[in-house]
Amino acid sequence: MSIRIPRGTQDILPGEVEKWQLIEEKARELCEKFQYREIRTPIFEHTELFLRSVGDTTDIVQKEMYTFEDRGGRSLTLRPEGTASAVRSFVEHKMYGDASQPVKLYYMGPMFRYERPQAGRFRQFVQFGVEAIGSADPAIDAEVIALAMSLYRSMGLQKLKLIVNSLGDKESRSAHREALVNHFKPRIGEFCQDCQNRLEKNPMRILDCKQDREHELMKSAPSIIDYLNDDSKAYFEKVQRYLKNLDIDFTVDPNLVRGLDYYNHTAFEIMSDSEGFGAITTLCGGGRYNGLTEEIGGPEAPGIGFALSIERFIAALEAEKVDMPLNKGIDCYLVSLGEEAKDYTVGLLQKLRMAGYSAERDYLDRKIKAQFKAADRSNAKFVAVLGEDELKANKINVKSMESGEQTELGLDSFIEKFTELYQS
Amino acid sequence: MSIRIPRGTQDILPGEVEKWQLIEEKARELCEKFQYREIRTPIFEHTELFLRSVGDTTDIVQKEMYTFEDRGGRSLTLRPEGTASAVRSFVEHKMYGDASQPVKLYYMGPMFRYERPQAGRFRQFVQFGVEAIGSADPAIDAEVIALAMSLYRSMGLQKLKLIVNSLGDKESRSAHREALVNHFKPRIGEFCQDCQNRLEKNPMRILDCKQDREHELMKSAPSIIDYLNDDSKAYFEKVQRYLKNLDIDFTVDPNLVRGLDYYNHTAFEIMSDSEGFGAITTLCGGGRYNGLTEEIGGPEAPGIGFALSIERFIAALEAEKVDMPLNKGIDCYLVSLGEEAKDYTVGLLQKLRMAGYSAERDYLDRKIKAQFKAADRSNAKFVAVLGEDELKANKINVKSMESGEQTELGLDSFIEKFTELYQS
Repeated sequence: MSIRIPRGTQDILPGEVEKWQLIEEKARELCEKFQYREIRTPIFEHTELFLRSVGDTTDIVQKEMYTFEDRGGRSLTLRPEGTASAVRSFVEHKMYGDASQPVKLYYMGPMFRYERPQAGRFRQFVQFGVEAIGSADPAIDAEVIALAMSLYRSMGLQKLKLIVNSLGDKESRSAHREALVNHFKPRIGEFCQDCQNRLEKNPMRILDCKQDREHELMKSAPSIIDYLNDDSKAYFEKVQRYLKNLDIDFTVDPNLVRGLDYYNHTAFEIMSDSEGFGAITTLCGGGRYNGLTEEIGGPEAPGIGFALSIERFIAALEAEKVDMPLNKGIDCYLVSLGEEAKDYTVGLLQKLRMAGYSAERDYLDRKIKAQFKAADRSNAKFVAVLGEDELKANKINVKSMESGEQTELGLDSFIEKFTELYQS
Repeated sequence: MSIRIPRGTQDILPGEVEKWQLIEEKARELCEKFQYREIRTPIFEHTELFLRSVGDTTDIVQKEMYTFEDRGGRSLTLRPEGTASAVRSFVEHKMYGDASQPVKLYYMGPMFRYERPQAGRFRQFVQFGVEAIGSADPAIDAEVIALAMSLYRSMGLQKLKLIVNSLGDKESRSAHREALVNHFKPRIGEFCQDCQNRLEKNPMRILDCKQDREHELMKSAPSIIDYLNDDSKAYFEKVQRYLKNLDIDFTVDPNLVRGLDYYNHTAFEIMSDSEGFGAITTLCGGGRYNGLTEEIGGPEAPGIGFALSIERFIAALEAEKVDMPLNKGIDCYLVSLGEEAKDYTVGLLQKLRMAGYSAERDYLDRKIKAQFKAADRSNAKFVAVLGEDELKANKINVKSMESGEQTELGLDSFIEKFTELYQS
């Protein structure tokens, strides 16, 4: 009996994987321009880390984590997101003491959430994210948003919608929180069990409830915008001003509440506005998380970041029918006839590759006709044919598949002559 | 209290991560030349997969796997190596039916083994590997070895030692197996418990035992080389001939036995010969695994591949003191003076980055002197200074940090003029 892939996960195969590669390469390039540098943290962390950072009232922590004990009896969890690990690493390696501040990091890699498998949702998915830790300048909030927008645009996405909100500082949040409790408490019995639990622990997350979204109290709920104190207001205004400077369109959405516990001040989401995209419209989410370093045991260091899923990015590109340059074809396919000529191509192939060309030959002992078919399939720019006669004459016949022109090249100076041909 | 990284794992931080990036980029480039295409399989697989492929008498399966149950009660294991997953995917997606054969795949990513933490050994490490499945042509054995050697050499490693061996086909292995049992059985009581278990299950692995390596029966043990039948001999001779054609030096080592169960015919290891490298000398291991696809539930499809650890690669580069071009420095640092000028740099910075330059500014509201220091630290090629006066005059002052020359550029045509300056 054959063994299958674990439920809810996927293999990314040649022909598809090039999409991931393309986006990841572009993201790395942009990060270099923006001066964010890669950090790689382990695939698993102590479970405690996510309880403290993501928050124990969230769906992620309550229902979706892959938690297990290692052989030493430690409780480990496959990371469900990247910010907690980046901040843990920032604290553990005392990066707050680095000469260069803020510390600007990016990460790229698999994350894990045990969700019900459904179209476009996988239990393992790839996230790209950035974190800028150590600055409370609203200009860096704008930079982080600009980086995400630039990445989407550089890949050719047009139909994007950016929404921003402010969750305010501690004082503002606490005033808003009180107002929310007062608003919902008298009729909390009409809400789902999750919302009832949230009322005292984290009432803001009631606004995010999918089950109760139509309840009349939702629309009349007090908005964080009305509870922002002067500092929070000024901060949010600056962020908006910078976004305007950067020609980035946005909408302020007072109902935007991020799913994780650790956000404050700036929160934002980038959605796809494309018709073909269906129900899942959020491509990227991010925000400010002043206070998270302390939560994890470090000194104060204000941070902001975002995370986006490569899989949804690709889905959005496909919904907008953006062309991705994937299938490149190879430079040269070596066809050979006869045992000796065939053996000779082993060395020739290596020479081509070492000279920088992508090249291929047959490994199935195929007849010459089948070799030409394989050359066709590989979309080769040139096909070089070596028979016993050519080998004796120390020559090889090279055909341009574009022009159909054939040229005889000396075997001794093959790479040199092939390069001339290739560049002409 | 602060939360720390799980024992035996590491964070790879900016300043170090560039080494991984460099090698991975080079590996991807080479794979394109050699026409191996990336496959991404999940981080975890059904435990059963590794029992069947890696083999249940190996240390990996017996002692080193991260095995756990998911919320649905399935036994999953963090992958300890990459071949099993690649072959599982090959079978599951029926790649044996693809028009293009053999199927040439590469993978790159974290693997997990619960080993005692020690210098240079981590419980999570990055492997790069290739698999060519669907051809039994000895030329592809040579190609796979050539790819690994080319990667090491292209990064600048000189002191490499390639050892090869043949484990023969089924018939040869079975004859050798019998000879081994006869050789060890009479005195097996003098060997360790592991070896005693191996005697009936997999006697070839006794030759690999670290504990009993000095036992006199080890040296006199029958060598697989003497049990190769004609087909196996001819195959091995062809592989060696191709390696010679490719100018790849190698030594035949009849004692080379790979640690995993699934190998036959060609087996090889690449070791570092560098003095500074210490005890761990194997950089890369690989071999042929005809029969593995059937083990996993698919049709016959002969395969060969290798895997190498990026961490050991880096250690070898460091032992040979190979220079890696890591610290690039940025193109332009924007220094500003006064609130308005500072705000203006938000847009200017984005323009520079979108034009392809790496650029940075201050996010800590620092005085001008500290901004210049930050520019220095960032190793900037140019420093652009914008004060209130310059802003009013619609100009900006750009200094080349190499020549010390200063130039005034108009703000309206800044990118255009900066590009001229940059290219001059």
